Amino acid sequence: MFQAKIYVTLRKSVLDPQGTAVRKSLYALGWHNVPDVRIGRYMVVDIEAADRSAAEEQVKDMCDKLLVNPVIEDYTFELVEV
Amino acid sequence: MFQAKIYVTLRKSVLDPQGTAVRKSLYALGWHNVPDVRIGRYMVVDIEAADRSAAEEQVKDMCDKLLVNPVIEDYTFELVEV
Repeated sequence: MFQAKIYVTLRKSVLDPQGTAVRKSLYALGWHNVPDVRIGRYMVVDIEAADRSAAEEQVKDMCDKLLVNPVIEDYTFELVEV
Repeated sequence: MFQAKIYVTLRKSVLDPQGTAVRKSLYALGWHNVPDVRIGRYMVVDIEAADRSAAEEQVKDMCDKLLVNPVIEDYTFELVEV
């Protein structure tokens, strides 16, 4: 069994309203030293696969087909055997 | 300048409807080898701080006061100097 930790973030060129809202809230709470906040998704996916490369292929396929919007998002992932 | 990468996940004891929905969608797309999916938030926060320990304290403070719901969520973070 493998566990994929997938980090999905908005592309740098895409506006991040959530991040802006959090930055303003932090500012209102007194943190004036936070120039930027970016918010993304963190997904932990358990996969039963024969070997690491098979698991890796499947994670990429899942991201391309369902988990990530390629127009506005980038992703990276880590794979650990559990 | 420091950059905090904060990973917020639901506690194991808390139901994860988003994760369940994604697991079912993956199943419908043919991935029958995915027993579990958990979805969380991934935040990248830039912080101007004098040193690492000051930055670390502030990240904990931000998480406790705003970024994380301690009743249903856990968090971990990494801090890198940029």
